Amino acid sequence: MRIDIISVQPGLLESPFSHSILKRAQTKGLLEVHVHNLRDYSTQKQKQVDDCQFGGGAGMVMMLEPIVRAIETLQETVTYDEIIYLTPDGKTLNQQIANQLSLKGNLLLLCGHYKGIDQRIREHFVTKEISIGDYVLSGGELAAAVLVDAIGRLIPGVLNDETSALLDSFQDNLLAPPVYTRPEEFRGWRVPDVLLSGDHKKIDDWRHEQALERTKERRPDLL
Amino acid sequence: MRIDIISVQPGLLESPFSHSILKRAQTKGLLEVHVHNLRDYSTQKQKQVDDCQFGGGAGMVMMLEPIVRAIETLQETVTYDEIIYLTPDGKTLNQQIANQLSLKGNLLLLCGHYKGIDQRIREHFVTKEISIGDYVLSGGELAAAVLVDAIGRLIPGVLNDETSALLDSFQDNLLAPPVYTRPEEFRGWRVPDVLLSGDHKKIDDWRHEQALERTKERRPDLL
Repeated sequence: MRIDIISVQPGLLESPFSHSILKRAQTKGLLEVHVHNLRDYSTQKQKQVDDCQFGGGAGMVMMLEPIVRAIETLQETVTYDEIIYLTPDGKTLNQQIANQLSLKGNLLLLCGHYKGIDQRIREHFVTKEISIGDYVLSGGELAAAVLVDAIGRLIPGVLNDETSALLDSFQDNLLAPPVYTRPEEFRGWRVPDVLLSGDHKKIDDWRHEQALERTKERRPDLL
Repeated sequence: MRIDIISVQPGLLESPFSHSILKRAQTKGLLEVHVHNLRDYSTQKQKQVDDCQFGGGAGMVMMLEPIVRAIETLQETVTYDEIIYLTPDGKTLNQQIANQLSLKGNLLLLCGHYKGIDQRIREHFVTKEISIGDYVLSGGELAAAVLVDAIGRLIPGVLNDETSALLDSFQDNLLAPPVYTRPEEFRGWRVPDVLLSGDHKKIDDWRHEQALERTKERRPDLL
């Protein structure tokens, strides 16, 4: 899978993509991530990529021309399955969307900044608009990093233990049950006896019951 | 405001906190972010911080002892308003929670990894559990970065233009209206006439109508 990201803050994305599972996915050749500096596509001397909004009001808008140049330059060599704009008014990301996107070949992500990008880009170029949640960030970069991480770990071969991903929260519409590791007791707080019983049927039942209870209590909307 | 973050991947967080608005907030002295390497608090020679889960099954669990040591060491010098664990089964972050947290003094964030942290930490130390959305990430670091960004930009003085933040999506339960900037026309795609009219009353009405329409269409649940 190949993911291209267009950003005015490419440096912000350096460390997330050079650590942990995203690094491993790239080292293994399962994922290629390229971050492109939008300013390289500016038509202006001072590499400006934003301007005041028509109609007035606070906040700048990202100009259409540099983004169109960036998209069309990349499209000369890559065919994208989706051109995704990260925006708080997009479709809210969930595990199902992450699963679907992890099956694609090439994705292009656009990170917004300020008040967002010129609406004409959204109408004429973007094929999917995604929000990572109902809150506003200072830019789309962290949203892009989150999306790449959520997708990247689902690509077959990226996680060392794939059965682990199948048991995560949301994969079966249940939150994950509580987990414990050594020591068995700490300051008088003990691990539940059932987990030490060695009875796998009982343990499975307990976990399912705990998952169900936690979901009922915290996220009844998932059931 | 001071935010401490405990992580097994501290390097992952380097670039997000040294760019853009989070950098500005720190340079202005409005926000202090400290990232602590959990491995520095390991009691083991090999700096191990995870172990197999009791009861068996795929995926490692983050051990309780290093986290307790890290929390209690930090608490010797800082009193935290909240100790927040980032986890997909936490309360879903939204703009209201971000607004509330932006008023706090000191926050401590715990990033999970693998199958998560030992449940006893959640029961005895954590005061708030937050999820940034219904999807699973490879670790809590990006979730912590998202939370710090969402909160950080709301601290008075961080944004150059605070009226801009008040007009963002979600602050009034409406999505933001479309925005446009120069040129007025590009490949035949024109900016809506009303935005060029100079009639501020008309422009305000149009924006409100567009925001309402977009919210009805995309996120009727917000209305």
